[in-house]
Formats: sequence, structure tokens, C-alpha cells
Amino acid sequence: MRTLFTAEMSELAGDLAAMARHVSAAIDRAGEALLTGNVELAQKVIADDAKLDDIEETVDERCVLLIAQQQPVGLDLRTIIASLRISAALERMGDLAQHIAEDARRAYPDSAVPESHSDLVAGMVAAAKTAADEIAELIEDRDLNVAARIVSDDDTLDQLHAEAYKRLLADGFVATPQEVLNISLLARYFERFGDHAVGISRRIVYLVTGDHTGEGSRI
Amino acid sequence: MRTLFTAEMSELAGDLAAMARHVSAAIDRAGEALLTGNVELAQKVIADDAKLDDIEETVDERCVLLIAQQQPVGLDLRTIIASLRISAALERMGDLAQHIAEDARRAYPDSAVPESHSDLVAGMVAAAKTAADEIAELIEDRDLNVAARIVSDDDTLDQLHAEAYKRLLADGFVATPQEVLNISLLARYFERFGDHAVGISRRIVYLVTGDHTGEGSRI
Repeated sequence: MRTLFTAEMSELAGDLAAMARHVSAAIDRAGEALLTGNVELAQKVIADDAKLDDIEETVDERCVLLIAQQQPVGLDLRTIIASLRISAALERMGDLAQHIAEDARRAYPDSAVPESHSDLVAGMVAAAKTAADEIAELIEDRDLNVAARIVSDDDTLDQLHAEAYKRLLADGFVATPQEVLNISLLARYFERFGDHAVGISRRIVYLVTGDHTGEGSRI
Repeated sequence: MRTLFTAEMSELAGDLAAMARHVSAAIDRAGEALLTGNVELAQKVIADDAKLDDIEETVDERCVLLIAQQQPVGLDLRTIIASLRISAALERMGDLAQHIAEDARRAYPDSAVPESHSDLVAGMVAAAKTAADEIAELIEDRDLNVAARIVSDDDTLDQLHAEAYKRLLADGFVATPQEVLNISLLARYFERFGDHAVGISRRIVYLVTGDHTGEGSRI
């Protein structure tokens, strides 16, 4: 019984890592679509989001069945409940990648990102993709150094977000309302993406270390 | 044992309803702060958010203990897991109210909302507060008519969101980048607030009816 449970828990972690890799591909493609005006790539991200939703549903059902059939307590129970939270956060990160792809598609054949902000957005795409890759790595290896790198990526996203708004509001900056709207929302999507990555990272750190400080304690 | 469990489940529902009422007060005050430039009220919303976080932590811990000690299955287990999801969504709605209050505070002594959009934002505040009140009512009474009203409030928020962007992008509309940024983000916060309300409503409908269609099936 215990061996079966261990195998099931390992499959659960595998599903979560697969979700993180899906999110990494989605944010990478959404970013490329945004910066190069590649509308087919944007379409692909939008269409693929349903697959992520399917994995989330599988993970959630697996968690409920594991609890009902195995009646876990202690760390096992906390791991399953954390998995529910992590799958919800990954699904949300996929939604944010989808929103970014939708902005790219809406702007086509123009770019949704004005020249003034393309370097910042390129930085956001890179940091967001790295964070998603690191979540997959953290789920698989539970290496706390990876968790620290995710926090650092989120700091990068926060700085780029602040800089994007600063440039927008600088004296003499001229842009159309559409451009200001695009930058406002895109920067916000990337910032939220980073927040979710840190939330996931904290939950895993909590499970590994039992550290009850910080948000991770709210499994 | 069963009676104790029933009492615990009832307390859990009570905590969730209390969270919804807290969110209702927060969005109402944040909206008033926004529309009247009342910075003290904005401060109060920001300071009070920690109380909501505390209730969420209590709810989450109660859920884990209920599962560990009572080993519920079937509908009881699904109700507890749905409660975890609902508390997370309510906490997030509180964060959105806090963001709105922060925008009001940042703009002080000016208003964060330009005259061109104050009627739309007033409509958003009213629909958001109504939705939060209805969540408390739905948790307590499980009346499916209330769930339908929440969906209708969310439709209102979506329409106001679309109209806010439409006005922003209309030919001849003149605004500063700061004003466009404010409207972009505020409309988005209210739209997300409505999405969370509908998500909560669907989960409760699912528990009451066992209806597996729609997002509520993802307990």
C-alpha cells in the first residue's frame, strides 16, 4: 500500500513538473509572438492553454482520490494539499501567458510593444521563462538553491515592471492611449507571473524544510 | 464524532462567510476612497487586509486538521477542498481591493480616476460590492438564485471593463499617461474581482448540485 502511495506521489510531482514545462514553453512563445509580431505563434499559445487546464484537472482529481483512498496525514497530506495549490498557480501562469499572446494577436500586424519598451519586455520574457523552468527543476530536485534563484527572477520582474511604468510616466514621453494600455497590462501580467512563481517556490521550500515563516506556511 | 464534524464544517462555512463580508467592506471602502479621494479610508483598507490574511490562515489550518483527524471522503472531503479554494479566492479579492486603495492613496490629493471614467468606476464598485455580499449569502444559504446573480454581476463588471477601454481608445480621447495607466489597471482589478466571485460561486453550485459542467467541477 505504502509503495503504491509513493508511486502515486511521484506521478503527482511528475504532473506538476510537466505543467511547469508547459508554462515555460507558453511564456517563451507568447514573448516571441509579442516581440516579433508572430501571430501563428500567438495562436498556438492560446490554443495550447486547454492542455494545461486538462493536466490541472487530472492533478486535482488525483489529489482528491489520494486523500480519500490513502487517508494521508502529516507531511504526506500537506504535500497533496500544496500540490493542489501549485497546480492552481501553474494554471494561472498559463492564463497569463495566454493573455500576453492575446495582446500580441490583437495588435497584429503591429507590435503590441512600442519601441520605447521592447528591451524591458524582452527582459521580462527571459526572466519569466527562467522562473518557469526553475519551478520544474525545483519540483523534481527540491534543491533550495533553485528556490533562491526563483526569488531573484521575481525581483528582476518587479524591477522591470517598475522601470516600464517609470518610462511611461517620464516627462516628455509620448505614446498613444493604446500603447500605454498595452504596456500597463503587459507589465502587470509579467509581474503576476513572477508572484505566482515565488508562491509555488515558497510552498515547496516549506515542505522540504518545514519552515513556517513566510507565505509558504499557508500551504 | 459526526456531530463534532458537522459543527466544525459549520464553523468553516462561517469563517468563509466572514471573509466574504470583510471583502465586501474592503471593496466598498476602496471604491469610496477612489471616487472621493479619501486617503484615510484608503489607509484603512490597506491596513485591514492583514486581518483577511489571518482568517485565511485559520481556515486553511482548520481544513488540513479536519482532513487529518476526520478522514472525510465523498462530499465532505470535496467540501473541505472547495473551502481551501474559496478562501484563497477571497484572499485574492481582498488583495485586489487593497490594490485599488493603493491607487487611491498614490493619486492623493488628486483622484486616480479621471472625470471621463468616474461613472464607469462607480458602477464597478457597486457591482463588485454586491457580488461580495452575495458570496456571503450563497455560502450561508446555498440558494442557487444567488449564484445566478453573481454571474450577472460579473457580466456587468465585464461590460464596464470593456466600456472603460473603449472610451480610452476612442478617437479624440485625451488623457495623460498616468490617467491611462490608472484606468487600465483599475478596470483590470475589478474584472479579476468578478472572475474570482464567479469561480467561488461555481464551486458552491457544484457542491450543492453535483453539476460537473463548467469550471466549478475543478473543485
